[in-house]
Amino acid sequence: MQIAMIQDKIVPITELEPVYLDRGIFFGDGVYEVVRSYDGRIFSLEEHLHRFANSLSAIEICGMDIDRIRSRVLKSFDVAGISNARIYFHVTRGSELRKHLSKADLEPNFFLTVTELEDNTETKIKGIEVSTHPDWRWKRCDIKSLNLLANVLARRDAAAKGCAEAILVDETGLITEGAGSAFFAIRGQMLQTAPLTANILPSITREFTIKAGRHIGLDILEESLTPQEAAGSDELVIASTTQDIVPVIRFDDKPVANGAPGKYAEMLNREFRTFTR
Amino acid sequence: MQIAMIQDKIVPITELEPVYLDRGIFFGDGVYEVVRSYDGRIFSLEEHLHRFANSLSAIEICGMDIDRIRSRVLKSFDVAGISNARIYFHVTRGSELRKHLSKADLEPNFFLTVTELEDNTETKIKGIEVSTHPDWRWKRCDIKSLNLLANVLARRDAAAKGCAEAILVDETGLITEGAGSAFFAIRGQMLQTAPLTANILPSITREFTIKAGRHIGLDILEESLTPQEAAGSDELVIASTTQDIVPVIRFDDKPVANGAPGKYAEMLNREFRTFTR
Repeated sequence: MQIAMIQDKIVPITELEPVYLDRGIFFGDGVYEVVRSYDGRIFSLEEHLHRFANSLSAIEICGMDIDRIRSRVLKSFDVAGISNARIYFHVTRGSELRKHLSKADLEPNFFLTVTELEDNTETKIKGIEVSTHPDWRWKRCDIKSLNLLANVLARRDAAAKGCAEAILVDETGLITEGAGSAFFAIRGQMLQTAPLTANILPSITREFTIKAGRHIGLDILEESLTPQEAAGSDELVIASTTQDIVPVIRFDDKPVANGAPGKYAEMLNREFRTFTR
Repeated sequence: MQIAMIQDKIVPITELEPVYLDRGIFFGDGVYEVVRSYDGRIFSLEEHLHRFANSLSAIEICGMDIDRIRSRVLKSFDVAGISNARIYFHVTRGSELRKHLSKADLEPNFFLTVTELEDNTETKIKGIEVSTHPDWRWKRCDIKSLNLLANVLARRDAAAKGCAEAILVDETGLITEGAGSAFFAIRGQMLQTAPLTANILPSITREFTIKAGRHIGLDILEESLTPQEAAGSDELVIASTTQDIVPVIRFDDKPVANGAPGKYAEMLNREFRTFTR
């Protein structure tokens, strides 16, 4: 008899709930998104849905209509009634007995959570420390997939060093992005970040940070930095959906400029905030 | 109220079964093994448990004792009563609301299946076709982790070309291994395969194939091959736990030698079979 064992409990495989056979867990065979709301309004949902459609298409998961996902996001946000919410959702290729090549007609699985976002005003005022870690991720970081173990390990390494984020450095010695954020340096009048390639996520907050940079008069340079260049910058910030723009005050245990959040970080934040209203 | 949505069903997050919050699905934050039995006896369990301990340690999952896992494997194999079984098991860092950095005291999740292995005698007699695909995997392929989307995509590509396995080629143009197998070329008296680095899995069947090669008088060369070198070899084989040694008769749509399984593939198989009795 084919069986499964969950912790130390044996179950006939035919009685197993499908979630235990999710290809998401066996292979990370799925893609995800995170959106957030500001004061009761979801920010940039369409941009996230557009990227999600790209991710689904890149790994050839069919049969999950974006309109259906949009209505599920809106409905769940409505039911939750949380003003500053983090909405996470993923779609996996489906559930079946584990084998690399899935059945062609597998039904995708959808999962979503709406949770309360902690206020990060204090973090933005104080700034954060970051440390570098080799970028161990796969070669298709432009796909927002569930294969995130490299990110988890880098973040664990950062935490062990007392840092809030890991900044990933590729084999050629260039910074790609943070383990869960885009990474920016401000050098003179220049807002610099890595260009969009298969090595980084096409971050939506990155786009809005660039837009904010333009609005406040910064020149934009999409060119990768070395850790040395980053450490010597006037200011550093990271950007992500849930935290938006956060100043970095220490880089690999050395202060960035005078070791306090800079004026452009504050200006970028103020400008960014106008997009979310 | 914090909520989850499974397909289109809304559930308060507090009522969600822990399996839905498994870090295995959110991040692939776990490691796995596959062992098999031949005629009622599990093959090389200790080697697999040893590698599993290394994988757990590499991603810093603690609190999952190998003795406990061994006894679960043996118990479930006994209960299943399947003579030629595939035993899959994984351990993930545990279940909690999604965030990169887990709680320190999280309880790991264990999951195992025992399923019937299909006989692959026919496949070994006929041989298989393989095709190359860029190796998109992460930089720690020595860890047997749940981050396998690159393998899935490569296997899908192979299947679309009518091939049974994808042979992965790294950025420098060298073959690492198959999407789910070790890869060997036989060139004259030489059995050649990629050396053990962070780019490939320390495959246990690879070790036994090398041992079988030595026993039948082949010289062993642990040095990576280009696809051109592979295509021009006298014989090619792939090796994996569930299939053991399978001859490759076509490589990127060109016949290998005369396009039929070779004598060494048969000799390797015969020798390998003596290990499993």
